This record gives sequence, C-alpha cells and structure tokens, in this order.
Amino acid sequence: MKRIIDPKSLIVSDLHQIMLGAISPRPIAFVSTVNSKGVQNLAPYSFFNAFSSNPPIIVFSSNRRVEGNTTKDTLHNIMESMECVVNVVSHSIVRQMMLCSVDFPSDVSEFSASGLTPTKASIVKAPMVKESPVSMECKVKEIITLGDGGGAGHLIICNVVCIHLEEDVLDENGRIDPHKIDLMGRMGRAFYVRASGDAVMAMPQSQQLPIVTYPNLPEHVRKSELLTANDIAYLAGLKSWPTLSEAMQLAMEIKEYKNLEQRERTIGKLHQLAKSFFNVKEYDKAVAVLATI
Amino acid sequence: MKRIIDPKSLIVSDLHQIMLGAISPRPIAFVSTVNSKGVQNLAPYSFFNAFSSNPPIIVFSSNRRVEGNTTKDTLHNIMESMECVVNVVSHSIVRQMMLCSVDFPSDVSEFSASGLTPTKASIVKAPMVKESPVSMECKVKEIITLGDGGGAGHLIICNVVCIHLEEDVLDENGRIDPHKIDLMGRMGRAFYVRASGDAVMAMPQSQQLPIVTYPNLPEHVRKSELLTANDIAYLAGLKSWPTLSEAMQLAMEIKEYKNLEQRERTIGKLHQLAKSFFNVKEYDKAVAVLATI
Repeated sequence: MKRIIDPKSLIVSDLHQIMLGAISPRPIAFVSTVNSKGVQNLAPYSFFNAFSSNPPIIVFSSNRRVEGNTTKDTLHNIMESMECVVNVVSHSIVRQMMLCSVDFPSDVSEFSASGLTPTKASIVKAPMVKESPVSMECKVKEIITLGDGGGAGHLIICNVVCIHLEEDVLDENGRIDPHKIDLMGRMGRAFYVRASGDAVMAMPQSQQLPIVTYPNLPEHVRKSELLTANDIAYLAGLKSWPTLSEAMQLAMEIKEYKNLEQRERTIGKLHQLAKSFFNVKEYDKAVAVLATI
Repeated sequence: MKRIIDPKSLIVSDLHQIMLGAISPRPIAFVSTVNSKGVQNLAPYSFFNAFSSNPPIIVFSSNRRVEGNTTKDTLHNIMESMECVVNVVSHSIVRQMMLCSVDFPSDVSEFSASGLTPTKASIVKAPMVKESPVSMECKVKEIITLGDGGGAGHLIICNVVCIHLEEDVLDENGRIDPHKIDLMGRMGRAFYVRASGDAVMAMPQSQQLPIVTYPNLPEHVRKSELLTANDIAYLAGLKSWPTLSEAMQLAMEIKEYKNLEQRERTIGKLHQLAKSFFNVKEYDKAVAVLATI
C-alpha cells in the first residue's frame, strides 16, 4: 500500500527525513576550507556526488539549517575564496568526521576539535585531511542558491583540479578496491552504512545488445513463483538463452541433474534444482538446468 | 603514500573510474520518462542526490557516453516534457534495474525488457515503477550542461511535486527503516552495496555544544595505541568527561573492574579493559573505566 504525499503538506523536518531515508546511501564530502583569518574549517556534507568526469565536476550542497535558518562556515569560506578540498570518509575516521558536524563557533577549527591532521594542498589554500584516502582539490565554478528558507540548499559546483590518492586502497591493477578504501555512506537519521565486506557485491552486466530480455524468457521462467525477480532478471540479462541441445549437454555434466531419473525431471523439480544453484551463486548451472525444460 | 594526480593528465575513462571508486556509495535514481510518441523509458543514474528539502530538490546527471559521446533517451525525453519520475532501487529489483542500463533502441521500453510494471503517476505524464518503494514525481526546473565531450554531465535539477511511499518500509513511528527499504548503492566498476543488515550502523552524535572535543581528552586517551581513532573520537564526542568520583562510582558497578585488585589497576590494564568494552559496544562501561585513570 502506497501513501501519496504532497511535499507542501509536510513540515520541512519531516519532508527532510523522508528524503534522507529514501535517497540513500549517500556519499560523504568531508569539506575543508580556510577563512580569511586563516581559521581552518572541516565539515561533512552528504548532499554530494560526482556529476561529470569530463571535465571532472563534483557538487555538494551546504544547506541552510532547518532550525534557525542560518548558513554554515563552509559556505561563507567558499564564497570568500571560491576554493575547497573534498576529502572522502573511510570507516577508520567516521567518528572523527561526526565530531566535525557539531556546531562549533567560527573561530574553532574542526581539525583541532576532532584530532584530524591538516596537510598542505598542491594548488588551493584550503588544507587536506591527511587521514582521508582521497582528497580532491577544487576550484568552485558556481554557487546556485536553491531557496532562502530553513533547509534550502546551495549547490556548490566544483571543478576538481588535483586528486591525492592513497596507494594502499588500490588493487593489483591500480584500481580503487572497495574493501580497501572502506568508505562510509550516509543514510537517514543516525544511520550510516559501511560499504565493504559482505555488503558489497560485484554484479557485472553487459551494456550492449543483444541480451535475452524479459519477454523472450520461457513462460515457466517468467511466471515462476520459486525464482525471485532478481533471479529472473539475471536470466533476462544473459547474452543468449541456450538451445535445448546445448542445455542438455551442459546439464549432463551436473551431478545433481544427471542423478535425476527421467520421470523426476519435472518443471517443479528442475526449478527447485535451479533455485538451489542460484542460492549458492552457481549461475551457469542454474541456467543450464532451466534451459533443458 | 599518496599519488598526486592532475585530472588533465588522465584519459576520461580512467579519471571516471577513480571518481566512481572514491565517491561511493552513491544513491541510485531509477528515472522513468515518456517520449512524445508514448514510448516509456526507464534508466538508472548514480550521479544523483537530494540537494534541498525546502523546496524539495533532487538532482541527477545524464552524462554523455564516454564511448561515442552520444546522449541518452532520458535526457531527450526530459528536454521535451520537462518531467520525470525518480524511483529508488531496493535490493529486490536490483537486477531488473541493471537490465535497464543496457543500450536499447529508443523505441524499446525498458519496462517491457525488464519485466517491471509501469503505473500512472498523480501529476506528471511519466509512469512510475510499481515495484519501487518510493517514487518521486518531478517537474524539471533547469538543465545545466557541464560540457560537450564524452563523459560530460547534464545537471537535471528537479522539483519534487509528489511522493509515493510504500507503507511497508516504515517503522512503528512512521519513519523509513533502512532494513525494510533495503536500498542498493552504486560503487565503482561492477560493485554495488546493499545498505541493510549488519553493514548499517546507528551512530547518534549531538550536533550541539558542549562536547568534550579531542584536545580536552586526557593525554593517556589521546596517545593510546590500543584504542582506535574511532574509539577516541567517540570519547571526544561525549557531552562531558566524568569526574574521578563519578567514574569510580560507575566503575565499581562493573564486575570486571571491581574484580581487579588495586595494584592491577594500571593504565595499560585499564585501557585493555576499556577496549574490551568498546569491542562489544558497551560504551558507557568503557568511558567509566577510562575516567578512573
């Protein structure tokens, strides 16, 4: 049952929490800036993402506070300097990051309050966070104000001009390994997600045609009540569906199939066997068994 | 050791992968549109986030393809209609979503190809995804072009005009429960994260002063080699540090502390005891023990 909500009918804090709970998990921009007096500022923002890789552009929003409708030091500092560093947040520094979300007075540096270490950037004046595995030096291209009430955002559109990347988070091919970089995502209320370990899954999918697609699957697959929507979509994403003779040949190499007597090879029994292979991620075997039907 | 990268020195696809690996996990906008001929389109975008709650504004980018530098049907349809629906992606439909990332011709509906069900929206002409737990009907406020080469983004800035929210994902207080909504986040390459279960952690932190802060922690805590940066930051985020007499009173209620003889209550031994409480998330006990030192 779905509830239909007119956003204008809600108070801002309730609408804010629905948006935070539904638009999750969000990457965290841990933004360092410096003001004209030299005070360094550091604050986390989860209304943040990459938006272009050519040129490399990232955007985050420093919102007006819902309570009190005031703006934040990060925004003030960026309006002055049009520069910042966006650092990413790995699990090892998540609680230090949380300290930097506290409303300190403008003359207190969150680096000091949190025990994080400022280091000199290559191009911009703002410091980087030494403990972050990736720091992106940014020149701010534009600030777009989205409203003037509490909760209103300011899109801070940043050109990435230099990237500092910790070698230890790379795999043997020089690519970022999600388990090594061990990033945190922000969710609603007090929830965070740790994006490493068992929660992470690799799901390759060819972007190119041909693929089988849902309408071309056999009806017994499309209408299966045993296979999940994800199992069925896996099958629809295959490059092609095996012919019966291909399938028989493949299936006869599977012990559990071969051991079934001819009269046991019913649709129900074969779907159960395929499902048992889906459960242990032996997708090739599941496909072979289903294609014998 | 950090590698310093000038973005201009990389080919676009390599820079793209560094940005995707570092700016993670990303929420997924599963965007439905309709063209002037009535063909429905559905495609996932992970350059996406909320950016304001007053007014409610979400932004996603439909990027020019890195290979071939072509633009996508979602962008064409939105340029025509200035409308779309942004649906969210729970684990139960992740593989169907992946099918919708395949490059189908413009006259093929991804709803049909993936087996997902279009339903009528309240305000906009674009259909909603029935199987998604939250669908946000959007009027597009502005499209900002970020470049004209392959990989260049188009910021599609959307006003949320109606929200459809599945009741089953709410907790007993009517708030979105991360375990029930069971959202998927996008990471680099073929990686996704499932943002529910053990990967999700609740970490409340008061945003208001006073908090202890890092410099006000006892030196034996700040310099500890047994406690992690997260343990120490937890302590720095407390509203106040217990006095010695408060700590002694609390500690004497802890069996493991009471059982230590006076001469065993060394800094090393007490840090080990506190660490054992951190390990099982018994934070109050860890604090009490450390504050007796």
